[in-house]
Amino acid sequence: MNADKGTSNKQNKEVDGLIKKGYITIIAGPCAIENSKQFEETAKVISALGISYMRGGAYKPRTSPYSFQGLEEKGLEILKKIGEKYNLKTVTEVTDTVNADIVADYADVLQIGTRNMSNFALLKKVGEIAFKRKKAVILKRGWASHIKEWLLASEYLGLEGEVEVILCERGIRTFDTNTRFTLDLAAVPVIRKLSKLPIIIDPSHAMGQSDLVIPMSRAAVAAGADGLIVEAHYDPASALVDGQQSLNPKEIEELLKQVKRVASVIGKKVR
Amino acid sequence: MNADKGTSNKQNKEVDGLIKKGYITIIAGPCAIENSKQFEETAKVISALGISYMRGGAYKPRTSPYSFQGLEEKGLEILKKIGEKYNLKTVTEVTDTVNADIVADYADVLQIGTRNMSNFALLKKVGEIAFKRKKAVILKRGWASHIKEWLLASEYLGLEGEVEVILCERGIRTFDTNTRFTLDLAAVPVIRKLSKLPIIIDPSHAMGQSDLVIPMSRAAVAAGADGLIVEAHYDPASALVDGQQSLNPKEIEELLKQVKRVASVIGKKVR
Amino acid sequence: MNADKGTSNKQNKEVDGLIKKGYITIIAGPCAIENSKQFEETAKVISALGISYMRGGAYKPRTSPYSFQGLEEKGLEILKKIGEKYNLKTVTEVTDTVNADIVADYADVLQIGTRNMSNFALLKKVGEIAFKRKKAVILKRGWASHIKEWLLASEYLGLEGEVEVILCERGIRTFDTNTRFTLDLAAVPVIRKLSKLPIIIDPSHAMGQSDLVIPMSRAAVAAGADGLIVEAHYDPASALVDGQQSLNPKEIEELLKQVKRVASVIGKKVR
Amino acid sequence: MNADKGTSNKQNKEVDGLIKKGYITIIAGPCAIENSKQFEETAKVISALGISYMRGGAYKPRTSPYSFQGLEEKGLEILKKIGEKYNLKTVTEVTDTVNADIVADYADVLQIGTRNMSNFALLKKVGEIAFKRKKAVILKRGWASHIKEWLLASEYLGLEGEVEVILCERGIRTFDTNTRFTLDLAAVPVIRKLSKLPIIIDPSHAMGQSDLVIPMSRAAVAAGADGLIVEAHYDPASALVDGQQSLNPKEIEELLKQVKRVASVIGKKVR
Repeated sequence: MNADKGTSNKQNKEVDGLIKKGYITIIAGPCAIENSKQFEETAKVISALGISYMRGGAYKPRTSPYSFQGLEEKGLEILKKIGEKYNLKTVTEVTDTVNADIVADYADVLQIGTRNMSNFALLKKVGEIAFKRKKAVILKRGWASHIKEWLLASEYLGLEGEVEVILCERGIRTFDTNTRFTLDLAAVPVIRKLSKLPIIIDPSHAMGQSDLVIPMSRAAVAAGADGLIVEAHYDPASALVDGQQSLNPKEIEELLKQVKRVASVIGKKVR
Repeated sequence: MNADKGTSNKQNKEVDGLIKKGYITIIAGPCAIENSKQFEETAKVISALGISYMRGGAYKPRTSPYSFQGLEEKGLEILKKIGEKYNLKTVTEVTDTVNADIVADYADVLQIGTRNMSNFALLKKVGEIAFKRKKAVILKRGWASHIKEWLLASEYLGLEGEVEVILCERGIRTFDTNTRFTLDLAAVPVIRKLSKLPIIIDPSHAMGQSDLVIPMSRAAVAAGADGLIVEAHYDPASALVDGQQSLNPKEIEELLKQVKRVASVIGKKVR
Repeated sequence: MNADKGTSNKQNKEVDGLIKKGYITIIAGPCAIENSKQFEETAKVISALGISYMRGGAYKPRTSPYSFQGLEEKGLEILKKIGEKYNLKTVTEVTDTVNADIVADYADVLQIGTRNMSNFALLKKVGEIAFKRKKAVILKRGWASHIKEWLLASEYLGLEGEVEVILCERGIRTFDTNTRFTLDLAAVPVIRKLSKLPIIIDPSHAMGQSDLVIPMSRAAVAAGADGLIVEAHYDPASALVDGQQSLNPKEIEELLKQVKRVASVIGKKVR
Repeated sequence: MNADKGTSNKQNKEVDGLIKKGYITIIAGPCAIENSKQFEETAKVISALGISYMRGGAYKPRTSPYSFQGLEEKGLEILKKIGEKYNLKTVTEVTDTVNADIVADYADVLQIGTRNMSNFALLKKVGEIAFKRKKAVILKRGWASHIKEWLLASEYLGLEGEVEVILCERGIRTFDTNTRFTLDLAAVPVIRKLSKLPIIIDPSHAMGQSDLVIPMSRAAVAAGADGLIVEAHYDPASALVDGQQSLNPKEIEELLKQVKRVASVIGKKVR
């Protein structure tokens, strides 16, 4: 497997980036940045809980062109402003080579979504920008990608030089319909055997239902994941996108409490 | 969903059967009973660790007719003898309506394997025997069965009267090839929403590799499972069947240690 | 692959059994035998079209125990009586080792359903009976079975001696939900490379909708299949089981017409 | 389903574009344009057989960044030159918004590959260019995309105005490993029910083995497909990419012969 060539991707767990040795990093926030109020109200909740990374989408890849497509650069402005005000590092998705540099002007961490895991032109471009501008990159697994394909995709990010790459398992597509996707938690120990890259879990997109997010977050941490990226919204009922899978303020607090307990027994802290 | 009709299956968590409220039940043992020595040596290890249930196959459903098919009734005799000697309750698979009664003569718990989840003639027969002879039944999920189909299959076991039925998720078949099957841990919280039946996890058959069994066992308990059924062998290198996924004595001890820690933070004990 | 050992299964295409060299064999009939009238009315239609095999289930494997389970031996009596009256050979499913001999008393061809492809006890029993009583056996592919597993399952049928075994692809379970199952027509040329066994296609269970059955039947014959097994009912709207996927008399006539044309260009006749 | 909104995509079968009413359109050519000689030798074969469309990749989306990535613009020059010399219309893949206009300078038909079906930025850009420059677009199905998602993706191509969009089924990812992907031929009649868009089949990428391409091409035409896109190479043994699934000159001739026969019985000609 060529993934052995992967010397250009940082062995991230030895340095303090998004992933920090001995810690579970939590990234929380709404699926889409809808407006300033929504993002700030959610930021208050997250910040008050001691979470240090906030997510929010400005360019939204939507199955239908007739659905809300995101606020684009206006959304990025909100992301940056609110992030700075509440001292939260920010994570957002890059969906096209032409807006990759703009995204990097505003966000701390660049995310490649599941639909773009094999968009190699985008991977190269984001890798280039991440290297030059010292940004971390979260690479979500394609929903029907083999782990080998995922690791090779990560190689595209490191062609220019060392980049902090974080893998993110977010559910694979199977025959099962009880959850939106099937969360492949075995990816965590499998990645440990094949790669030095850290791996985080997105239980929100995998489950598609908020009440399954907490048990699967506990399981992810117990399996050895380095972090979680979860959808949270100050008022899920009013969300424009994916409200049914977003945690409300009480639930995100409960998630943190439970995840801390599981982390403690495997010698990790939560941040 | 007709599963609501399922009043005939015991609400098992209220009574002490294989599943006991507040406890994680561990079932360990070799895939197949190979001979008296192998089974006894493994029983010693398991018993010394305080595990109370031992598994071992006497009738083995094998993909090829030219592979070892199990010791059949001779294997059941070993199962019973060693089980009694080491004070271990025993679990073994029933593969045909004609040997169901014989299996019940020897074993405490009857198991329906993944290949037979939709063998309705077998389910009816085992349900009948389990009811009359007060045996618990472990019903493994078919490797490509929807959860709704699984719950309806469990209804076949309760047609004669109340039976202790325990569901067992053992991995589903997906495109992924890094593990033998994909362990669908979300089945645990999904089952909690749809049914009163307890659910245990078989990480050994799902993973197909012993080194992935411990992290996935931790995850299973963190997800809320009621128990684990794992393959253990006093000397996996010599196993006739599935040695590569069997834990050796040191590993089974380590599994117990780690699972106890995770169980403790969710308020459960391990037995 | 051990399937090379498979010398005990007849190289069916050289002899005239269910499969005849140079012919596409059509098997048609209702999912379940519901009563004498339904079966006879359907038999009239089938027989008038020159089809020589009729199917009908007497023991129905149903997902829910609360659904209609088939007429059992009473259904077999109808099968035999009507089959003889209209000079149709009969095909029906065996679901349990204990009723295998009874089924063989009434039917010409024994069918193993998709849920029982890995019910090895049943395979052995049916193989034994088929050998002794000169019955052909249709072995449906498990809906999530690898082709290698299917061929090894066919070996269980030939342990006693030469049996006419016909493989039947009936759709596999995938993420796709537009059809009930995904019909894997590539199984036809793949089987040709790996085995001497003939292969027929069941488009009715694969599609789950009658209007997709004709195009997929044409495709099956074009891919090289040796036959088709399709659901037909004199009045699908009144069917107790699977009416939405049954062809009505006009549609079964149209299917035959179209299939004959495709068969003709690959040098085959339809019977 | 919003696909009903799709009035902006041409009802292609009424006009003569890539798809012509009453015809099966064949597109053949190598996976990658390797050099002028390879492309010209292959063009000679294709042209001599009366095929009117030739494919060849200049920008190759490769799983590994260390594999051959295509000749890029130099490849496009070869494509155009040889296409004109042999009077073949040309088809090639667009992989990035920034090279979409360049590709349109050289090729007649723009292809969106399976990995980019949900790369919505690319779809919008290609739709825009296709509308302005009167190019047809082939939209391959994502290998794990639902048909609904595929049709909604096609809507992104028609946002600027009427574009000739041709859907292409190229295999979906399932548990089955006997073929590279599972060809979902039922997509043909399903698309007929849901959309006015034409649909062609790519048996080469689906099968991954050249000897399975001819039977599956026959089946595709019998199922009602409007065309085929197949990999052909004047000397597959020397191909840099996907040689094992490319047809050699004799095989492509045989494919044409057999496809014509099947087409004839459903009232179609091959071009």
